[in-house]
Amino acid sequence: MSSIKAVKGTRDFYPDSMAFRNWLYAAIRNVSETFGYQEFEAPLIERLELYAAKSGEELVKEQSFVFKDRGGDMVVLRPELTPSLARMIASRSRELTRPIRWWSFGPFWRYERPQRGRSREFFQWNIDLLGVVSPQADAEIVAVIATFFKSLGLSPTQVRIGVNNRRFAESQLESLGIPNSANTDIFRLIDRKEKMDEVAWFEYGRKLNVSQTHLDGIQGKLKEKDVWKNSPELVEFFTACEALDIKEYVDFEPTVIRGLDYYTGTVFEARDADGSERAILGGGRYDNLVGDVGGEPISGVGFAMGDVVIKLVLEKYGHIPELKPSPVDILVTTFDESLQENALTLATEIRNSSFKVEWYPQASRLSRQLKYADKQGIPIVIILGPEEVEASCVTIKDLRGRTQEKVPKDKLFKYLERLLEQQNG
Amino acid sequence: MSSIKAVKGTRDFYPDSMAFRNWLYAAIRNVSETFGYQEFEAPLIERLELYAAKSGEELVKEQSFVFKDRGGDMVVLRPELTPSLARMIASRSRELTRPIRWWSFGPFWRYERPQRGRSREFFQWNIDLLGVVSPQADAEIVAVIATFFKSLGLSPTQVRIGVNNRRFAESQLESLGIPNSANTDIFRLIDRKEKMDEVAWFEYGRKLNVSQTHLDGIQGKLKEKDVWKNSPELVEFFTACEALDIKEYVDFEPTVIRGLDYYTGTVFEARDADGSERAILGGGRYDNLVGDVGGEPISGVGFAMGDVVIKLVLEKYGHIPELKPSPVDILVTTFDESLQENALTLATEIRNSSFKVEWYPQASRLSRQLKYADKQGIPIVIILGPEEVEASCVTIKDLRGRTQEKVPKDKLFKYLERLLEQQNG
Repeated sequence: MSSIKAVKGTRDFYPDSMAFRNWLYAAIRNVSETFGYQEFEAPLIERLELYAAKSGEELVKEQSFVFKDRGGDMVVLRPELTPSLARMIASRSRELTRPIRWWSFGPFWRYERPQRGRSREFFQWNIDLLGVVSPQADAEIVAVIATFFKSLGLSPTQVRIGVNNRRFAESQLESLGIPNSANTDIFRLIDRKEKMDEVAWFEYGRKLNVSQTHLDGIQGKLKEKDVWKNSPELVEFFTACEALDIKEYVDFEPTVIRGLDYYTGTVFEARDADGSERAILGGGRYDNLVGDVGGEPISGVGFAMGDVVIKLVLEKYGHIPELKPSPVDILVTTFDESLQENALTLATEIRNSSFKVEWYPQASRLSRQLKYADKQGIPIVIILGPEEVEASCVTIKDLRGRTQEKVPKDKLFKYLERLLEQQNG
Repeated sequence: MSSIKAVKGTRDFYPDSMAFRNWLYAAIRNVSETFGYQEFEAPLIERLELYAAKSGEELVKEQSFVFKDRGGDMVVLRPELTPSLARMIASRSRELTRPIRWWSFGPFWRYERPQRGRSREFFQWNIDLLGVVSPQADAEIVAVIATFFKSLGLSPTQVRIGVNNRRFAESQLESLGIPNSANTDIFRLIDRKEKMDEVAWFEYGRKLNVSQTHLDGIQGKLKEKDVWKNSPELVEFFTACEALDIKEYVDFEPTVIRGLDYYTGTVFEARDADGSERAILGGGRYDNLVGDVGGEPISGVGFAMGDVVIKLVLEKYGHIPELKPSPVDILVTTFDESLQENALTLATEIRNSSFKVEWYPQASRLSRQLKYADKQGIPIVIILGPEEVEASCVTIKDLRGRTQEKVPKDKLFKYLERLLEQQNG
């Protein structure tokens, strides 16, 4: 009997992994809301033309799920959110009051080789501040990241946020006498600096036709960790980081460039401190993104974080709490067939008093029902046998302390309230 | 300048419509959890073979987004959840303790003509109780629906749940001397009873080669609203509805059949009481669904509810609360360029005291910043001008009462707490 497999690179979220996804989503919501960002969501499929404007060639031509729908239109399972964000802003450009602070958490698809830290269907947090151009706005977005890390228990010795500025990087290259026309290649080269050993990096540089003098010059610049002090924009940025109380997480990092073409100013990237995993997230400032899809030009700053790498980093540092998939703390058992209706009525009464209650829906052996509660992490089990019905009471087993008590029906709700306070206290 | 359009039948969730979707999701979560159901989620794309087993022909062949991925596999944007649920249960059949109570809320796609109550990309609540075969289990799922309606303020005069049983319907047809081989056609005919006038219905029946005697017999049966009392299973079902305290929402409805082939016992459907909108939701009991995708046979009962029709019904009866898209109640303004850093520091301090705070990220005219707060529904605005800095205080404007007060910095947090209690109290 051969069973049907899931699509390669997709994930089944059983209740235990769904509990993690929800926990992460709640942490994301919490920090996004703390800074005043409003949740939105775009469609999960978009027309191919939307990506022609700005996304990297590789992303759409090689890594996207593209197909012709029944009406003949070319449709893409969205590989990133920013083009949809631009389309949405453009189509309501007049009504939307600036500043626009928006976030979302939803599914994306990329046809890449599934590997550690990467799946073909993944979830991504996107957050953007649009309509304001200032180093302070850039710093706020970085503060969202730092506050998020802090809220998860990730300390500045475990995770770091590296910041650079593309305009400043360009001026640095200029000061070395490198022509602007070479910038795309040089940025690619700088982007690889931390990912290659020195010999390979120099070889790569020579392959890109960069002279030995320029290579030496670039290498020298990338070591100057205080050079940002020559950039008024970066100075303002780091001053704002102090006002935002997040300086301890942030470094000037001249090797951070980010791949996407549309970044124009501040760029940043967060990693685990030992750099052993892929980047946790990356982002930066972009200009005129909305203009490219047919709206009034608007500038913004934002980032995207996938759900896969952050999970690896949280696991590595032991920051994932124990999550119980069952949402209830009370199980009402069914003693036997003849008392099934009584059990159902009891569960309903308890539920109508604002408790979450699961009812064991058949007359199995009691030991089996207790084992079920134990396995689901449900601490309180209620038994209603013939004796209890006779005496207008119930038996309550507390599986945490393995204690058991008979409680009169008219004192039941108070008793449960007290037990659950212990649970949560 | 032509702007790029969204894919037909998809929706943009701007913060206001996202607030509704989140409100609905929270109500769904609340009732699902109240009965002990655990949230899960399947991949959003599945292999075509998965749907070959059981989904209606029409659903996959005519209404699904199907495409060949870059690896050559035929992939479907899922049109329904049940086949994925079956696959997931089958692949962990041994580890999963029964009863299995699972729910989810996620996106689905159907290539249909977009119209009132229907979009091509929509969200759906799915909930299932697996591993138990009993009228009480069926009744619990119906109780989830009734409790959901109640929690939204929908009364039994506004919405009704019609219940039938396919086995009982079959026995009724048998009693009329109709051969079993005709059941598929007759079920289709019964399904249309409420959707056609009498003349058209009889004509449709004759087209299906049903004799006049049988048509008269069926019409007669469909009027007998008490005939369920002859079915021990339906009697047990309605008794359980009483124990579950939901009888007021539920009717025996012999015309409810449901389209999908896999239902075998209890079937049900919820509608607005005047029947003017499409069905809100439908579901029923199915046997052996998991067996069909290669696992141990397991029986279940469940339903699916889309997000579009329920919204129309809630609007019709005025049950959608006012939802404020901004998550914060406090805006810290920027008085002028020279005090921007001070404003940012103040916002950070308030945030670090566990308040949600938005910072106005540039030195615009104060009237403009106040207008922004008003438009976003943010009630409390904090002003930090040169006077306030001098006197170590802030000015707090309460936009609800249009009052304003100077508050010393060291009393600020207490003051805000008190203001927000008023807000929520």
